[in-house]
Amino acid sequence: MGKIIKIDGGVTAPKGFKAAFTAAGIKYKDRNDMAMIFSETPCECAGTFTKNRVKAACVKWDKEINVSGRKVHAVVINSGIANACTGEEGLAACKKTAEAVEKTLKVPADSVAVASTGVIGMQLPVEKLERGVEEMSKGLTDDLSGGTGASKAIMTTDTVNKEIAVRFTLGDKEAVIGGMSKGSGMIHPDMCTMLAFLTTDAAIDKALMQKAVSEVVDDSFNMITVDGDTSTNDTFMLLSNALAGNEKICAENEDYETFKEALSYVCVFLAKRMAGDGEGATKLFEASVVNAKSKADAKLLSRSVVGSNLSKAAIFGCDANFGRFLCAMGYSGADFDEGDVELCFVGGGEELKVFDHGVPLDFDEEKAVRIMKNEHVTVYINMNEGSASATAWGCDLTYDYVKINADYRT
Amino acid sequence: MGKIIKIDGGVTAPKGFKAAFTAAGIKYKDRNDMAMIFSETPCECAGTFTKNRVKAACVKWDKEINVSGRKVHAVVINSGIANACTGEEGLAACKKTAEAVEKTLKVPADSVAVASTGVIGMQLPVEKLERGVEEMSKGLTDDLSGGTGASKAIMTTDTVNKEIAVRFTLGDKEAVIGGMSKGSGMIHPDMCTMLAFLTTDAAIDKALMQKAVSEVVDDSFNMITVDGDTSTNDTFMLLSNALAGNEKICAENEDYETFKEALSYVCVFLAKRMAGDGEGATKLFEASVVNAKSKADAKLLSRSVVGSNLSKAAIFGCDANFGRFLCAMGYSGADFDEGDVELCFVGGGEELKVFDHGVPLDFDEEKAVRIMKNEHVTVYINMNEGSASATAWGCDLTYDYVKINADYRT
Repeated sequence: MGKIIKIDGGVTAPKGFKAAFTAAGIKYKDRNDMAMIFSETPCECAGTFTKNRVKAACVKWDKEINVSGRKVHAVVINSGIANACTGEEGLAACKKTAEAVEKTLKVPADSVAVASTGVIGMQLPVEKLERGVEEMSKGLTDDLSGGTGASKAIMTTDTVNKEIAVRFTLGDKEAVIGGMSKGSGMIHPDMCTMLAFLTTDAAIDKALMQKAVSEVVDDSFNMITVDGDTSTNDTFMLLSNALAGNEKICAENEDYETFKEALSYVCVFLAKRMAGDGEGATKLFEASVVNAKSKADAKLLSRSVVGSNLSKAAIFGCDANFGRFLCAMGYSGADFDEGDVELCFVGGGEELKVFDHGVPLDFDEEKAVRIMKNEHVTVYINMNEGSASATAWGCDLTYDYVKINADYRT
Repeated sequence: MGKIIKIDGGVTAPKGFKAAFTAAGIKYKDRNDMAMIFSETPCECAGTFTKNRVKAACVKWDKEINVSGRKVHAVVINSGIANACTGEEGLAACKKTAEAVEKTLKVPADSVAVASTGVIGMQLPVEKLERGVEEMSKGLTDDLSGGTGASKAIMTTDTVNKEIAVRFTLGDKEAVIGGMSKGSGMIHPDMCTMLAFLTTDAAIDKALMQKAVSEVVDDSFNMITVDGDTSTNDTFMLLSNALAGNEKICAENEDYETFKEALSYVCVFLAKRMAGDGEGATKLFEASVVNAKSKADAKLLSRSVVGSNLSKAAIFGCDANFGRFLCAMGYSGADFDEGDVELCFVGGGEELKVFDHGVPLDFDEEKAVRIMKNEHVTVYINMNEGSASATAWGCDLTYDYVKINADYRT
């Protein structure tokens, strides 16, 4: 274990995966807004989906594929319209998109996953989607540039591309996991975040792959928040075409642990990148809770701190107003005594303790501002009550968040 | 029932209540930052307090008084420092404040409630508080101006004064309830909001008064939100000195219903005023849910809609992006089927349906903008699944919210 090597590329880095992208004119003019991932070899699939009761039509479509156990050949994504709150017409759009892939690439329509992100409560222009699929079917490439292009085409208010690939060894074979994700607003994943698609050539049993996905997503995508709004479209899918040639992972052995470690590396990377690129954000805001009574409490505490509007605004203003973190911890639902708590700010290689066992400390305000001016600010919270820990990631709340969201649709 | 008449004034409107205020220099220079309410006649007290696990020292002090059943003579409030996360020193500050009142006004220290709002994690300057109490003890007046001055002295980022008084009849006696409250940020009451103090001369059994308070607060203060941050200091107290001369209310009879109706009138007025004056807000944002499966669901749904950052930003931008409301309903935890839902925007005497039984409607965008430009915008949500209803109040999310909170402390 432990030899996870970051390599170039994204979803086309593992063997046998191709990608394509196009400007289908769904929402924007002259902007790539559709992407496709394709594997000639059928893939096992593991996924997690939004727990929002209002689920987009495409989430319903993909959940059905994931539960059925069918193999997957392709994922088609558009970044113009969410296809949520669209009734029967929305479900029909999913089917027609999948049928378009069947027509051009000769794989069964029910092996094609679809995903959407964008405006809720608006119907998809099906003909544009069909033309987009036709276009992309011609442009599929296993070059790394295809993965990068696909990753960029699914961005909405995102400002940075979010892709990664890692290489690791299973037995005597090299395997790769590649991934891309998007998400900047309406980010408060409850199962996983907006859209994330991972590919791998590692051979692994479907049930074990789902287990690894569920555990890893819980500690990565499910630990980020931008605005507390859990989307209707959250979708995470990992496709495995088993082309690495490794002995198939069928037990929780050393190979499984290596696979899970690589998966975790990829997911934490993408999740942090998403949090730091939250709508309008100027910095990544991390809350690291240690020595809590339970893992569940540690998660509640860290998520509550990075999710608090007041904490986020203080981070934006470089104001070491740590009382807001304690307030957010207090309403998180976790069990603790403020008299046990220690709080430190950490950033740019410096740290500063501001609260010690229930008592506010006199601290150096200039140093606090210096720490908080970093692009990555951590609040380190020692509960001194147990041994559980958790880390959550968010971003600051800025004028630009309001600006972006006051006129998103119009 | 039904004859609730709004009259001038606030906490000094009922018989026997005096108030005072002063600039004690706790945080600001030359700004009133302390207030006192006083009744020579001892008062029964009913209260509700924050459910935040991190409770301010003053909340602990007041809860003890409320639970003990002791009579209350005075409430002393400062609006500079929250006295939360201040350990033993914070509790000692409460005691010293109460003892200062004992010294000047000859009432027992343990009949003096104290309350604070302001920065968390900072110690109170006790000597300034003591001088403030001395000053206010000389300035107590039963004039309406005393109540108004006290109400204004507890404001922090509030931009409008929040006070009200109503008159009603119990048997052949007239009784009055007066109230004042403050709150603009860190407003997501879980029990009741920041600070609200009500006075009444109506005679009512303590247990019945507490029952009425708990029920009314649940449908008023507990249904507003500004930023999702439940404060460490939320305090609601109602003091009754029984000077109206009515036959004491000792059963849930007609007088009880009248009292509760008057109390509800006062609480809803103050709660809405607080939501509409949320930090940086330009308008009051109301979500009215009808025909839900249960009252609990109706509350979850309405609170989730007005609490969503994305919904609030859309309201600010006059963008009828109703999908964000459906998204917020979806993650509220309430049980429903989006296929049953109808959504209307209501404002300035106009209304506009945008979503009908799961299907987005084509609507007049100009009319939507016209409706949303009003100072009070309501989204009317018909669940069509039951008969329960609830209303929640919030405000829009604006640049000024970020501005106010990025540099609150410094």
